[in-house]
Amino acid sequence: MFGASEEQIAHVIAVVEQAGYQPHTIRGTERTIVAAVGSGRNRIQLEALQAAPGVEEVVAITHPFKLVSRQVHPEPSVVNVGAVPIGGDEFIVIAGPCSVESRDQLLTAARSVKRSGARLLRGGAYKPRTSPYDFQGLGEEALRLLAEARDETGLPIVTEVMSTEDVGRIAEYADLLQVGARNMQNFALLRALARVDRPILLKRGPSATVKEWLLAAEYLLAGGNPNVILCERGIRTFETDTRNTLDLAAVALAKELSHLPVIADPSHGTGRRSLIPALSSAALAVGADGLMIEVHPCPERALSDGPQSLDLDGFASLMRNLAQPSRTIPVLAGGEP
Amino acid sequence: MFGASEEQIAHVIAVVEQAGYQPHTIRGTERTIVAAVGSGRNRIQLEALQAAPGVEEVVAITHPFKLVSRQVHPEPSVVNVGAVPIGGDEFIVIAGPCSVESRDQLLTAARSVKRSGARLLRGGAYKPRTSPYDFQGLGEEALRLLAEARDETGLPIVTEVMSTEDVGRIAEYADLLQVGARNMQNFALLRALARVDRPILLKRGPSATVKEWLLAAEYLLAGGNPNVILCERGIRTFETDTRNTLDLAAVALAKELSHLPVIADPSHGTGRRSLIPALSSAALAVGADGLMIEVHPCPERALSDGPQSLDLDGFASLMRNLAQPSRTIPVLAGGEP
Amino acid sequence: MFGASEEQIAHVIAVVEQAGYQPHTIRGTERTIVAAVGSGRNRIQLEALQAAPGVEEVVAITHPFKLVSRQVHPEPSVVNVGAVPIGGDEFIVIAGPCSVESRDQLLTAARSVKRSGARLLRGGAYKPRTSPYDFQGLGEEALRLLAEARDETGLPIVTEVMSTEDVGRIAEYADLLQVGARNMQNFALLRALARVDRPILLKRGPSATVKEWLLAAEYLLAGGNPNVILCERGIRTFETDTRNTLDLAAVALAKELSHLPVIADPSHGTGRRSLIPALSSAALAVGADGLMIEVHPCPERALSDGPQSLDLDGFASLMRNLAQPSRTIPVLAGGEP
Amino acid sequence: MFGASEEQIAHVIAVVEQAGYQPHTIRGTERTIVAAVGSGRNRIQLEALQAAPGVEEVVAITHPFKLVSRQVHPEPSVVNVGAVPIGGDEFIVIAGPCSVESRDQLLTAARSVKRSGARLLRGGAYKPRTSPYDFQGLGEEALRLLAEARDETGLPIVTEVMSTEDVGRIAEYADLLQVGARNMQNFALLRALARVDRPILLKRGPSATVKEWLLAAEYLLAGGNPNVILCERGIRTFETDTRNTLDLAAVALAKELSHLPVIADPSHGTGRRSLIPALSSAALAVGADGLMIEVHPCPERALSDGPQSLDLDGFASLMRNLAQPSRTIPVLAGGEP
Repeated sequence: MFGASEEQIAHVIAVVEQAGYQPHTIRGTERTIVAAVGSGRNRIQLEALQAAPGVEEVVAITHPFKLVSRQVHPEPSVVNVGAVPIGGDEFIVIAGPCSVESRDQLLTAARSVKRSGARLLRGGAYKPRTSPYDFQGLGEEALRLLAEARDETGLPIVTEVMSTEDVGRIAEYADLLQVGARNMQNFALLRALARVDRPILLKRGPSATVKEWLLAAEYLLAGGNPNVILCERGIRTFETDTRNTLDLAAVALAKELSHLPVIADPSHGTGRRSLIPALSSAALAVGADGLMIEVHPCPERALSDGPQSLDLDGFASLMRNLAQPSRTIPVLAGGEP
Repeated sequence: MFGASEEQIAHVIAVVEQAGYQPHTIRGTERTIVAAVGSGRNRIQLEALQAAPGVEEVVAITHPFKLVSRQVHPEPSVVNVGAVPIGGDEFIVIAGPCSVESRDQLLTAARSVKRSGARLLRGGAYKPRTSPYDFQGLGEEALRLLAEARDETGLPIVTEVMSTEDVGRIAEYADLLQVGARNMQNFALLRALARVDRPILLKRGPSATVKEWLLAAEYLLAGGNPNVILCERGIRTFETDTRNTLDLAAVALAKELSHLPVIADPSHGTGRRSLIPALSSAALAVGADGLMIEVHPCPERALSDGPQSLDLDGFASLMRNLAQPSRTIPVLAGGEP
Repeated sequence: MFGASEEQIAHVIAVVEQAGYQPHTIRGTERTIVAAVGSGRNRIQLEALQAAPGVEEVVAITHPFKLVSRQVHPEPSVVNVGAVPIGGDEFIVIAGPCSVESRDQLLTAARSVKRSGARLLRGGAYKPRTSPYDFQGLGEEALRLLAEARDETGLPIVTEVMSTEDVGRIAEYADLLQVGARNMQNFALLRALARVDRPILLKRGPSATVKEWLLAAEYLLAGGNPNVILCERGIRTFETDTRNTLDLAAVALAKELSHLPVIADPSHGTGRRSLIPALSSAALAVGADGLMIEVHPCPERALSDGPQSLDLDGFASLMRNLAQPSRTIPVLAGGEP
Repeated sequence: MFGASEEQIAHVIAVVEQAGYQPHTIRGTERTIVAAVGSGRNRIQLEALQAAPGVEEVVAITHPFKLVSRQVHPEPSVVNVGAVPIGGDEFIVIAGPCSVESRDQLLTAARSVKRSGARLLRGGAYKPRTSPYDFQGLGEEALRLLAEARDETGLPIVTEVMSTEDVGRIAEYADLLQVGARNMQNFALLRALARVDRPILLKRGPSATVKEWLLAAEYLLAGGNPNVILCERGIRTFETDTRNTLDLAAVALAKELSHLPVIADPSHGTGRRSLIPALSSAALAVGADGLMIEVHPCPERALSDGPQSLDLDGFASLMRNLAQPSRTIPVLAGGEP
């Protein structure tokens, strides 16, 4: 409060008390600070004080997420997808086509990515497309093909859910249900998925902060589903030479703030095939628990995301490359600071 | 294509033909350009050529929206909400509380904004909230209160739809159904709203380009609902002193590219009460067809968006202010260039 | 401080005292807040506490600008450029070509924009160009041509300074010295311009917050030059359909926080000729003190910024349009809230 | 061109020819494309065609950088700083304090970072500070201290140049001259540095695209200085939980497009001490040629950038950590796709 009257200050103090917080008043020469201490659920009433006379600014010191926080759950969580643990010692790679296009395309991709080391199979059945005139996915037929690919390869399957109405059907088929970036704050969908007995892969929205992403995950945990895996897939910035800006610091920060597993998607994160292997290695190095990679037997014929899909050889090469250090590091033996 | 072989060029030409476009090849000293001419629906196959050997870049020259475009519908569209025409000669102001909180709060606001000149009443029944612990709206009770406020004041009502499951119920009560910014690319919701006999208010997503926004509107028109009003509500940028960055050039650009009416929401667009009157005048001047303003009888007790809500006097003052020119303009009489 | 030990808290308190601030300690159940009260110049030592053990976050409550602030100078400042007052009752339009290209081009433009109502003439002599292979300006020859145009038309002239070495020479010719957006935080240049007896036009950087912009102005005032005009010219965002995103809320906010005059540049702000008239009207309505508009006798032959330059008729039309209200506003007579 | 007349098309063709390019005209049903083929230096005249009647859009297909491009120089360049090669087989770490504050502070840091494996010493003498009231650096005294530290440790030194006037003096002392992010497009400074017999470290601007960054480097090469090292230090985005968004895809992309060495600065890139080790490992993995890390003997007393400075132990730990793989990768032996 800047140049506030005694009456204005008293009013703010009264509101803080009504909201169930303890007020602490600090008086400077020009400004007065009223700190609200407590963990009440009436935070919004404090924010609304922005509107009270004499108030210059309301500043939040603490963060409103709880169940996803490391502060309440210091150990990292491991989420099992079928028999595959994500968030444990092993780095898990999910691979497969952007969209399921045909039996042959899917099975060819599934067999190949398994041989190369992928542990889960991805494939889109219901596709979120910017234009209504673009290919929208094969729907339930794609779900059946994914199940067939799982039966043959043993790879658990992940696919995107776009609508509350599809949740039940997709949960019958899929081992891991994906919330796409554009639905990260589709709260109706989050509430429906909180009640499902399947783990959820929650992509970060293209303009969501790390804290908003964690709050979206909080919807799932608070609604009853503790099995959530976070996926960084790039944010939207001014840079146009890459499709998005893959924010690897967000991976490290999400793991610092939360106990949930975090994977990275360099396919959407860069939108350029040539950059995917390098960013995959970087995601591993930054501490991600795994990757999600788009792989297509013939990217140039893909019905979606062709420019960012690897072909089968490209993915095999990426997997071999992941394990190899690239440079000489001049760390002196026994280096003491 | 840079340094491409004859074989690579021939392959690209063949794909262009298979996709139903006419190829035109232009050879420079280092690069070769293959232009694909036509209006086929296999645009995605052209984009996938990004993946073909020898291809440097695929550049889209035309835009994939059709029904929303001025090129096919040069005259501006007027959308009627109840008896109120939006997109015509009159500048229409929508006002009301962020959330419906009580009968008294809503009716007090409704009567007052009507007296001040508002033509539609807004009020949230189902609220998209970043945190699961914040107030989520009164739901159907709010819808009944809105209907009561309409009955008393005659103002048509607008409220947000967050889920396909709510579409039918909300369409029974509301005159205009709002798609919130975070749901702009909730394609399941757009498809459901395309089949409803009510006009739609489509907010721009916080990280959506103008063209993506128009393509979201294209989902509604292509699905059968021609009554769409666009609403610019600010985009997310690096600037934190305002909640969002109200992009008034997007209002002018959307009106240039499309025939649909466009309104502006300076409440969300700035997040600061003190800036709303100035930005409202600017929206009028830039050519918007109307405004959407959050008004609360007591902003400091609001359960949502208090800091950006005007009180009743503030809104009355804004409306008076809208009609007044602010400065002397030194345009010389008969000025010839 | 979250879960901090008594020793850690005592350490923070000691540092706050050493830095010349008064510590106030507030203890919650989990967190402890140490507020530092005072107006010392050792703010940086407080920020560095972020690094101390037990400290979760350091939050700044006050803003470090002083001389530019409305809090210390409530009345708006008027800056005189030659005989033209900027920041007073009159809305001032600056117009002219992006670059001075020839005597004929400049004089043709100058005479025409004067007839249409412009009060200052702009023209680039030294041009900041993204590519070293693009036209870099005519340099001192352009300054002489600008002076000739002033002699003939009576319009004071404004041109950009790119280097400390050029400050003296340009100050001999120009009435108003412009700091370009990319030099907003060229602190060596700001320090040199603080010592010049000429007013300064300070463009906002493409990724500068309003507060950083005001702090750049603070360099000029603190260094001895009180005659500063701010210019909003668009920020860089994800939107690519416009060259920049003209942030008109920043105009209103800068005028709220500071007493300095603020103008807008819709030419750079949009990069699209067709949008400039609408955004010019919006800038007037939002409370800007003036405009800066690129005008070229033949935009399609311009050596820089052709796509965003108006021709002479276009500018005349813009000026006539500025004075005219566009819509019917339904404000009821005697409307009481 | 959309719906253009024959006259309008003929005019565009004539301008393309006058600019020294070969026109190729492609006619669709609604649009006509005029492609300009050639490598003339009149690209700007083509861009200005945006302003010609009938023209819908001018799209650039090729990029205007030449000397920095991999297309003309396929082998990676190695830049020697003193006896240290950057861009070769070894991963080079630059470390030291943000600002030189005292002889003791600098020498303590220099000895320690050398023991831990750093190969160059950084230290600011002239500091770009957002506020005029913050510590601005010790100037030439800092340069002398840096030279003393080099004499003792053998580490070549790097420091920032903020002004053309300082170029000569700093070049006498420093082995590598840094252009700060806010000066990336200070073209007067780039021109001065192009004439200096010292290598240049060119930081990416906070809102510069990769291509603009490469064009800034092009100024240095075109002006006569081939010894340029690029440094990614984070871009400005909407995310506020990190100071900037470190764009590691930009490192990979810059190395793909250019032959110049590229290093990363995770200190500025994240602004959070806790994230720096993870992002350092990621930068190594993505293919960077080295790192630049802020290290201070006592970060909480630092006069600048305390929150992002590592202490001496923290840096030693980071260096040990760089060499170690973090996870089990399930790549099957002999995996064939």
